[in-house]
Amino acid sequence: MTSTYKYPRPALTVDCVVFGLDEPELKVLLIRRDLEPFRGKWALPGGFVHLDESLEDAAKRELREETGLEKVFLEQLYTYGNVERDPRERVVTVAYYALVRLSEHRVVASTDARDAAWFGVHDVPRLAFDHDRILKAAYQRLQNKLRYEPVGFELLPKKFTLRQLQRLYEIILDRSLDKRNFRKKILGMEVLEELDEVEADVAHRAARLYRFNPKRYREMVKRGVNFEI
Amino acid sequence: MTSTYKYPRPALTVDCVVFGLDEPELKVLLIRRDLEPFRGKWALPGGFVHLDESLEDAAKRELREETGLEKVFLEQLYTYGNVERDPRERVVTVAYYALVRLSEHRVVASTDARDAAWFGVHDVPRLAFDHDRILKAAYQRLQNKLRYEPVGFELLPKKFTLRQLQRLYEIILDRSLDKRNFRKKILGMEVLEELDEVEADVAHRAARLYRFNPKRYREMVKRGVNFEI
Repeated sequence: MTSTYKYPRPALTVDCVVFGLDEPELKVLLIRRDLEPFRGKWALPGGFVHLDESLEDAAKRELREETGLEKVFLEQLYTYGNVERDPRERVVTVAYYALVRLSEHRVVASTDARDAAWFGVHDVPRLAFDHDRILKAAYQRLQNKLRYEPVGFELLPKKFTLRQLQRLYEIILDRSLDKRNFRKKILGMEVLEELDEVEADVAHRAARLYRFNPKRYREMVKRGVNFEI
Repeated sequence: MTSTYKYPRPALTVDCVVFGLDEPELKVLLIRRDLEPFRGKWALPGGFVHLDESLEDAAKRELREETGLEKVFLEQLYTYGNVERDPRERVVTVAYYALVRLSEHRVVASTDARDAAWFGVHDVPRLAFDHDRILKAAYQRLQNKLRYEPVGFELLPKKFTLRQLQRLYEIILDRSLDKRNFRKKILGMEVLEELDEVEADVAHRAARLYRFNPKRYREMVKRGVNFEI
């Protein structure tokens, strides 16, 4: 079975930049290609869009098929369509980025990926296609988002200490933050729920645990107050 | 001549949301469709991506062909790929938004547009396809961008008064701003160049003209200072 059209069409793919926090490092999930072109090279997980699925569904399916990941936070990043970006033929790709709680997910390589592995974002090999460029854009988007939207919580365990939260910001923004100022800002927005629990199994004095409260965040936005760190 | 592929492919289009400032209104450029589907309905200018052009080049070509617009500020917005968004078949569209100095551009309907016209953003008829949704997203993006990036200047004449600049912000953000606070913020960033000229042909006392200086803006960003209004 083949498909015939009046005018030539670009092929359409999706690619996913998946970030995970593995303290003290921000990591990105890559697959090793088992097919040409760039066979044996590391690349972003992704593949062709099927006719009967939305772009986001295609991204989710490819993630599941190539890495075993499911139910992750996923947002569209940008669409890349330079004429020469794929050596085979014209391929346009819709890039997504995803945030994953490493503690809750197991990664398994499958289908056309020979291998799947986490790399430190500052320690990534040269990638296939224009995936270096896509990864760079995704990292910048994450840095920007983190300051103005409550996306960072997607990378932490559901219950966390303020210290963990500050470390997350420091690792991703790549600079140290003033502890007092950070706590004042994040607690001042009242989007965190202080729990009646402390962290377990620590050598130092156990710190209070908090949880992000999406309902409080939505109420804050309705009042016209912006999230900002 | 037809094209045959092993697997079926979505068609790929670009669509453009073009904003212009026509005080006291923000306007958007629409075309009236001369072809099915939605023949006779208003829609965003756009069309199919050719194999030998980048997505941005396709957006520029369609704008030129359908509306006569050239050399406008253009940025990618989002890619829409819901399965049912086009009644004909699966069509994925990469949406762009553009900012235009109305004083410098003339709009001419052509090719598969029967008509092209500017509409107030709050006074737009029901559009073809999912273009209402795309327009809404573009307007939100513009509102956000305006606060954190110096894009507003693309909508003003190259030389403008501080009053004009404030009006631009008020019209797009849809709320009034405090004059003293606005001037303090915008002048404090030192991205404006005060000119040795005043506005011409006004009944009231002629106000000083300013020009946006992209070089000063880039230097500000290098120093780690964010644009913010």
